[in-house]
Amino acid sequence: MIHKGTMKPINTDQLILASASPRRKDLMGRAGLKFDISAADIDEDAVPYGGDPGAYVQILSAKKAEAVALKYPDAWTIGADTIVVVDNAILGKPKDRKAALSMLGQLNHRTHSVFTGFCIMRPAKNTALTRAVETQVRFKALTPEEISWYADTGEPYDKAGGYGIQGVGAFMVQEINGSYSNVVGLPVCELIQTLAQLKIIQF
Amino acid sequence: MIHKGTMKPINTDQLILASASPRRKDLMGRAGLKFDISAADIDEDAVPYGGDPGAYVQILSAKKAEAVALKYPDAWTIGADTIVVVDNAILGKPKDRKAALSMLGQLNHRTHSVFTGFCIMRPAKNTALTRAVETQVRFKALTPEEISWYADTGEPYDKAGGYGIQGVGAFMVQEINGSYSNVVGLPVCELIQTLAQLKIIQF
Repeated sequence: MIHKGTMKPINTDQLILASASPRRKDLMGRAGLKFDISAADIDEDAVPYGGDPGAYVQILSAKKAEAVALKYPDAWTIGADTIVVVDNAILGKPKDRKAALSMLGQLNHRTHSVFTGFCIMRPAKNTALTRAVETQVRFKALTPEEISWYADTGEPYDKAGGYGIQGVGAFMVQEINGSYSNVVGLPVCELIQTLAQLKIIQF
Repeated sequence: MIHKGTMKPINTDQLILASASPRRKDLMGRAGLKFDISAADIDEDAVPYGGDPGAYVQILSAKKAEAVALKYPDAWTIGADTIVVVDNAILGKPKDRKAALSMLGQLNHRTHSVFTGFCIMRPAKNTALTRAVETQVRFKALTPEEISWYADTGEPYDKAGGYGIQGVGAFMVQEINGSYSNVVGLPVCELIQTLAQLKIIQF
């Protein structure tokens, strides 16, 4: 006999995702979490990059969580930040076609790293915890036509590193090593594990 | 200036996906392909497993493609088959809760392999090509409560190996090594590459 739909609610405390990213919303929804969204508005440029990508995304995720958590001190707020790193430099979102072509050229036929940091914060309990996860992503050898075609899909422009692994961009990704959801924007396995450790969810 | 929506059609010849899997349909759609669906109805049990998972999924994908391609000889038909392999044995779809718990127990806290084979066939051109891709998937250490809870989500029952990496099941997957879409049901990078080699698509 198959039991369907008898799943208990995975979390009872209020969860808030401090991100406007539709991809993070999708990942948390697919993971079975119930949550509200309140996007954080912080000045990311005010945080200098010191050369440690794991530390950097944790600092940014904490700043994002804090910006929202102070408004909802008794809820658990989740902030997150994702960066693409190649040759020790961060690739941001390409601002135009030229920048997109340049980024895709840098990623072409080699391995780069994607780091996501997340922070879970509840001010009323004086609790804040951050964590960073790294995934390595290998691009296949792309032809100039493939790069140009991909830039024309419009997909690069709102994404760190200029590509989306969950969209058309999947054709460029030969393999990954590590967490897939981490590349999309939130490492689901590690997030759920951390929520369970904090007793925010129970199985 | 950002160019959006100027993407050329990725394929002009007719493509048919010989699979009823909503996950394969989703992957092909996200990859930008235009295609029709005509599910293959074959007796998978009629194909004995000889111990070579890569060969096995290619044979099954060819049988699925053939069952549909003979009806549409001038289209390109894509068949696919995905299996989960642990200790050299194939894990099928669990038929009940007991089988789901048993499979999840076998996958717990270790690495297994997922193989997808695909076949691209066009009888009118006497063309058929098959390929298999392997991805390694590592499960975290699951508690009995987590396994039991996951079985109750209902997600295991229509999936090879008893889990879905793209759904709630993501919480169990610590890391993968290889193609993510291959685990979902169709290796997008390799499929697009093969379609390009056959000049079915162009960039």
